[in-house]
Amino acid sequence: MPESAIRKLTPYADQAKGDGVKVYHLNIGAPDIKSPASAVKAVKDYEFDHLPYSHSAGTFALRRALVEKYYNPIGININVNDLLVTVAGSEALTMVFQAACDPGEEVLVMEPFYCNYNTFSLMNRVEIVAVHTDIKDSFKVPPMEAFEAAITPKTKAVLLCNPGNPTGTLYTKKEMLAIGELCRKHDLFLVSDEAYREFCYTGEPYFSAMQIPNLRENVILVDSASKRYNLCGARVGCIVSYNRDVLGLITKLAQARLCPPVLGQTAMYGALHAEPSYFENVRNEYIARRNFTVNALNKIPGVYSPMPMGAFYTVASLPVDDAEDFAKWLLTDFRLNGETCMITPAAPFYKTPGEGKNQVRIAYVLEVPELKKALRILREGLKAYRAIKS
Amino acid sequence: MPESAIRKLTPYADQAKGDGVKVYHLNIGAPDIKSPASAVKAVKDYEFDHLPYSHSAGTFALRRALVEKYYNPIGININVNDLLVTVAGSEALTMVFQAACDPGEEVLVMEPFYCNYNTFSLMNRVEIVAVHTDIKDSFKVPPMEAFEAAITPKTKAVLLCNPGNPTGTLYTKKEMLAIGELCRKHDLFLVSDEAYREFCYTGEPYFSAMQIPNLRENVILVDSASKRYNLCGARVGCIVSYNRDVLGLITKLAQARLCPPVLGQTAMYGALHAEPSYFENVRNEYIARRNFTVNALNKIPGVYSPMPMGAFYTVASLPVDDAEDFAKWLLTDFRLNGETCMITPAAPFYKTPGEGKNQVRIAYVLEVPELKKALRILREGLKAYRAIKS
Repeated sequence: MPESAIRKLTPYADQAKGDGVKVYHLNIGAPDIKSPASAVKAVKDYEFDHLPYSHSAGTFALRRALVEKYYNPIGININVNDLLVTVAGSEALTMVFQAACDPGEEVLVMEPFYCNYNTFSLMNRVEIVAVHTDIKDSFKVPPMEAFEAAITPKTKAVLLCNPGNPTGTLYTKKEMLAIGELCRKHDLFLVSDEAYREFCYTGEPYFSAMQIPNLRENVILVDSASKRYNLCGARVGCIVSYNRDVLGLITKLAQARLCPPVLGQTAMYGALHAEPSYFENVRNEYIARRNFTVNALNKIPGVYSPMPMGAFYTVASLPVDDAEDFAKWLLTDFRLNGETCMITPAAPFYKTPGEGKNQVRIAYVLEVPELKKALRILREGLKAYRAIKS
Repeated sequence: MPESAIRKLTPYADQAKGDGVKVYHLNIGAPDIKSPASAVKAVKDYEFDHLPYSHSAGTFALRRALVEKYYNPIGININVNDLLVTVAGSEALTMVFQAACDPGEEVLVMEPFYCNYNTFSLMNRVEIVAVHTDIKDSFKVPPMEAFEAAITPKTKAVLLCNPGNPTGTLYTKKEMLAIGELCRKHDLFLVSDEAYREFCYTGEPYFSAMQIPNLRENVILVDSASKRYNLCGARVGCIVSYNRDVLGLITKLAQARLCPPVLGQTAMYGALHAEPSYFENVRNEYIARRNFTVNALNKIPGVYSPMPMGAFYTVASLPVDDAEDFAKWLLTDFRLNGETCMITPAAPFYKTPGEGKNQVRIAYVLEVPELKKALRILREGLKAYRAIKS
């Protein structure tokens, strides 16, 4: 069981902060954006003198609001029986691994991928098989031959994150249809983690795995309120599927853990009643942050980052041999006016040994003036680190 | 994967309610008792414009309050590093099964036991081995020979619930010391689910597994805010252990699922600041309910219930061949003045096939006037059911 790659360097950051150093956090997807006011209000207005369990599948009010206020309007034609509320995307993924796979079976995932997928699969003794995507190709979906080559009799599912953490890659409708065709051909589940669905910057309509024709029984959608409404701490998400067998099994797992958090469900219910302008404002803010960050990265000598079209991350290659060593050194040894920054080494997001060693994940989750200072620290830090290492 | 025994009959109850029938719920441990006012106030006063993740092990404020306001005063001498906040007792138990046992290993549990233990063990492919306790002996801890006889090279832990769900049995200090001695002798983990610790009716001080001398590294305490403060829907609990290896592994599992619910943690933090009179009032209320319920049960011809000394459940034997059939019949066929009651068949709480077939679990979670009506329905229902069946 590996340590969380994202949180591994935290002790060094804590040490720096203890020494009075300001640390800019580009390492974790914990944005400073406000939740919809309706989410805060729903919690404030929630009258209770005790907190009973909700239904194991989530409160009926929340499930209906998810269907009517969220999924149906974006073209995902489900009803309340196709949906089960979970303790955020993390529990959703754990349950999907448990329900869709037996121990020893394999799941194809494009690397680099969200490193906790490793933990969720290990917990259920399911093997992740990586299909490589490359920074030089902007982490695009590789030709289907690459997937075909990785399929074995043990392959049970394709798991993808769209748009992707850590790369910010947004898959096109054409790419999704091709992956759908592959899953149909080999009768694989398509598990689609769409937690970042609202953070798309191409202007084109988002194409969900749930909208792939003729794949109804194979698609399992994993979703979350965490990033969408900046309700990470609410711990609420959901699983959506037309597959009765899968949802039936997951219902049993859900009953055993009794129910998702009631106050978090209240917050998400409120969030579903947000002003329509909410996402537009958030999106515009992220576009400004992304543009600044990626342009600043590419101006640093030896650094390359593709322009991501979704989420709020990018993976950049640095002119260093070992990005983890550099990231640690920034925290332990480098200060610019008493400040430093924290970035996440990208190697743990790869399954293939040796891949991504000179890459980092940058989360552009700060306001532009803060990003400006953080990127300056990164540039100056790189210069100083290379001077020492050369 | 079995269906939740507690929720299995729910569709019949829903049907009855749909037909306008009032259903008294003696089937589920969802009490109507108020949470401490300080818990409600903490949530009302919590100012936020978004909800970030907390620390994976829970907020520092909550962990410190748990140590200083709760565990240390009751004689459990831990510090914040011995404790990890979980998504209630359910997640705590799942994590303990994952961290303490390998697939194929065995855990001894006295039957009847909380039936979701089956699900948590199945999820991790751990085998529960039942040590039988008998209604005729008030479900007392059997002689240690019964445990010894069940131990194999694969045995890894003893799991107990004290006071117990479904029986309400409270284990004495002497019994706990004997079980501790057994665990020391065979180097087994002692996993102690103490979610009902406050609901003890003997007047004697509660003796926690954490207080067993010379067993430090072996004890894992599972705890929960759900029943203690009637915050079932908050989904907050904790794992306490002096064992660094176990807590280290659980920390990794905790990091993968990011954090426990923040609003629920706020509610529990508030609850820890309750008036000292809170538990006394709750306890007195439950004693009144228990006394009424158990006396009323034992007055019904052919019914027997021991007098439980803890929690808010009792297991009663009924003069029927199949308690599940009777429980279902109450919901589908029996009405007294347009009302009926719902009870839980006890057989699913047993691992040994055939055991408990004529037993039910009764949760005395209603006020005495309501219990009075519910018990009258049970008495009249039994009479009518036996008339049909004879």
